[in-house]
Amino acid sequence: MQRITAKYYIETPYELEKAAQVLAGEQSSGTFVEVPGETAELKSRFAARVESIAPLETVTEPAIPGATSKTGKYQRAMIEVSWSIENFGYNLPVMISTLQGNLYELTQFTGLKLMDIELPDLYSEQFKGPKFGIEGCRKLTDVYNRPLIGTIIKPSIGMTPEQTAELVKTLVEAGIDFIKDDELLGSSANSPFDKRVDAVMRVINDHADKTGKKVMYAFNISDEIDEMKRNYQKIVRNGGTCAMISLNSVGISATRKICEIGELAIHGHRNGWGMMNRHPLLGIEFPAYQKLWRLAGVDQIHVNGIQNKFWESDDSVVRSIEACLKPILNGTTVLPVVSSGQWGGQAPETYRRTKTVDLLYMAGGGIMAHPMGPAGGVRALHQAWEAAVDGLSIEQAALKYPEFGKSVEKFDSK
Amino acid sequence: MQRITAKYYIETPYELEKAAQVLAGEQSSGTFVEVPGETAELKSRFAARVESIAPLETVTEPAIPGATSKTGKYQRAMIEVSWSIENFGYNLPVMISTLQGNLYELTQFTGLKLMDIELPDLYSEQFKGPKFGIEGCRKLTDVYNRPLIGTIIKPSIGMTPEQTAELVKTLVEAGIDFIKDDELLGSSANSPFDKRVDAVMRVINDHADKTGKKVMYAFNISDEIDEMKRNYQKIVRNGGTCAMISLNSVGISATRKICEIGELAIHGHRNGWGMMNRHPLLGIEFPAYQKLWRLAGVDQIHVNGIQNKFWESDDSVVRSIEACLKPILNGTTVLPVVSSGQWGGQAPETYRRTKTVDLLYMAGGGIMAHPMGPAGGVRALHQAWEAAVDGLSIEQAALKYPEFGKSVEKFDSK
Repeated sequence: MQRITAKYYIETPYELEKAAQVLAGEQSSGTFVEVPGETAELKSRFAARVESIAPLETVTEPAIPGATSKTGKYQRAMIEVSWSIENFGYNLPVMISTLQGNLYELTQFTGLKLMDIELPDLYSEQFKGPKFGIEGCRKLTDVYNRPLIGTIIKPSIGMTPEQTAELVKTLVEAGIDFIKDDELLGSSANSPFDKRVDAVMRVINDHADKTGKKVMYAFNISDEIDEMKRNYQKIVRNGGTCAMISLNSVGISATRKICEIGELAIHGHRNGWGMMNRHPLLGIEFPAYQKLWRLAGVDQIHVNGIQNKFWESDDSVVRSIEACLKPILNGTTVLPVVSSGQWGGQAPETYRRTKTVDLLYMAGGGIMAHPMGPAGGVRALHQAWEAAVDGLSIEQAALKYPEFGKSVEKFDSK
Repeated sequence: MQRITAKYYIETPYELEKAAQVLAGEQSSGTFVEVPGETAELKSRFAARVESIAPLETVTEPAIPGATSKTGKYQRAMIEVSWSIENFGYNLPVMISTLQGNLYELTQFTGLKLMDIELPDLYSEQFKGPKFGIEGCRKLTDVYNRPLIGTIIKPSIGMTPEQTAELVKTLVEAGIDFIKDDELLGSSANSPFDKRVDAVMRVINDHADKTGKKVMYAFNISDEIDEMKRNYQKIVRNGGTCAMISLNSVGISATRKICEIGELAIHGHRNGWGMMNRHPLLGIEFPAYQKLWRLAGVDQIHVNGIQNKFWESDDSVVRSIEACLKPILNGTTVLPVVSSGQWGGQAPETYRRTKTVDLLYMAGGGIMAHPMGPAGGVRALHQAWEAAVDGLSIEQAALKYPEFGKSVEKFDSK
């Protein structure tokens, strides 16, 4: 039977082999006293298997508390553990409980992070993956050979649907490809969901009628499941092309259900991510995380950005983008959403390190606060990416392109 | 308008007041450049408010990476921040994105943990809370004045429905109140869900017909939403009284939907919890966590146990139990599920510290591997709790009760 393999970065006060076996045992048939019924045949069929152990450095302080080493040493390693898919079949929640359930509680570990998952071939038959992904989102927006340029409605919360639509009008006329609600806004007291969809889609549809360009707007449908379905259909009826879900807040079962409808591209927001990733030896890394959400069918997923305003390193962002671009599940991809403090100046470095324009590149103030107005801001972002692909430095690009030059003057803090 | 208040344990390389304001700004209307439309009126209505700052110790090493202090010092504090419920209404996912979204990414913090949430009165009108809770689960099992005694089917995975039913027969005849699937088992190759329900409920119903005692079995329905609904109805049709959901793996939107059906008590398993809680300064504490799931309607929730086999301290377990017992949402409660390495010897200490028998007390090997058989194991647990309430020590109880005495001989590692 085919197996699913998970790679963990671990730290343990015990022998590596023993610690790895405890993890495998706990996540397939563990209990603290040997019980009847746990036969050798059962074990060999359903037991998790330690596939490899690659020792790394030893440290003298535990990364996370909860266990003490008698020798005063804590050994780090990269280990791989596999499970027969007979254990959970195609049930994503049970797969998640297997790969990242109680194991974080074990005193055998003073550090445990799920780094990546290798999916078996059978999963490609069963899971369709993102319905739209990179190619589908390009088709929906008719944008090719450059990143989709997007922005977030700010202030996040408090504007009326009319105020939002007014801002959307400015943005679509400025030539933007994509706009999204903030994750803090669902249906608020002064911006009820339906009214916002009506007001915003009127502007977007009018603009599409006039120019042929249909801007993608990700309405935040995050809510309980029935409300999400209702909101989804509201977007469909009004001619929208995208809905946003806060993945961690909604959860994978409801997200998968919404993705399966298949009429809208699903914008996956990862807010809450820092909680399970910021510590180097606790939680989950993005290459594993994004696979779970691709299995659920999410079409776009946030990866933060190079030189972002948050804590994350550029190396980590690059790894995340690369993970999204790697085809899985019959060659499907997920569109990486680059955001956080982006104004175009990060484009050369982003391109130098990832060699891709298959991105949704989000800028906020970089567009709205551009000295030549939002249209100048959008143009500056196109220029930034053209320059990036041509291998120009920021200085060279600033000289060549007037709008981008103004961005450099205003936003470059270096 | 009523407000929701969240308490955070923070560590920051900056001034406390400034860091707290950044958190409030980021989670209501933040962006890195001032934008048009962010008026004073909007801000005062929708902005998050820093309610209090209680400084704690200063340290010289950051708790989590991602920011460096220029002074070499990192200040810890307890802070309270509030939001008008106008911002998210009764939308749980958007509330979660507000209370524990992007804030973990901020370089203003080298530590951030959501400690507790204070719900506004309006939430009691809108959210019904757990349908069953402690009283409802007592009614369903007809167990009063002592903890419900439960166990988990082990090995977790690999047994056929017939083998499981055989074990259930042994357990119900031994006098147990509650049995559950392991979280690793949903519908596996050799234990399809329906067949397991058929086999297990036949045993439970037969026993109820004979003795009047209906044992509660928590079948693990964790899956995508339609499958969960289907599995739920299967349990209802077969006369079951409980379904289990792996909360973190399924997510809150789908869990809430299932809870709302209201025909079965929902057993909430928190596997994956260590990922968001094990670090003292990252993630979420249980008092906040259990409130979210009570809002969703979960009737029972895992709290680990005193002297457990995992990493968690007894103090933390006691706090968790107390949090569950505190009535919210019109006086509703959630039944704390005590488990992990429990065999009854922890009963005196558990009672001494919590003064409650409103628990679902789970033992594994303590029942199945008892020297006098499973019936002896269950009896030993009843005795352990009687002794605990009477204020006996383990030694006194072992002398008074033969079955418990045998448990002490076999399981007491001290």
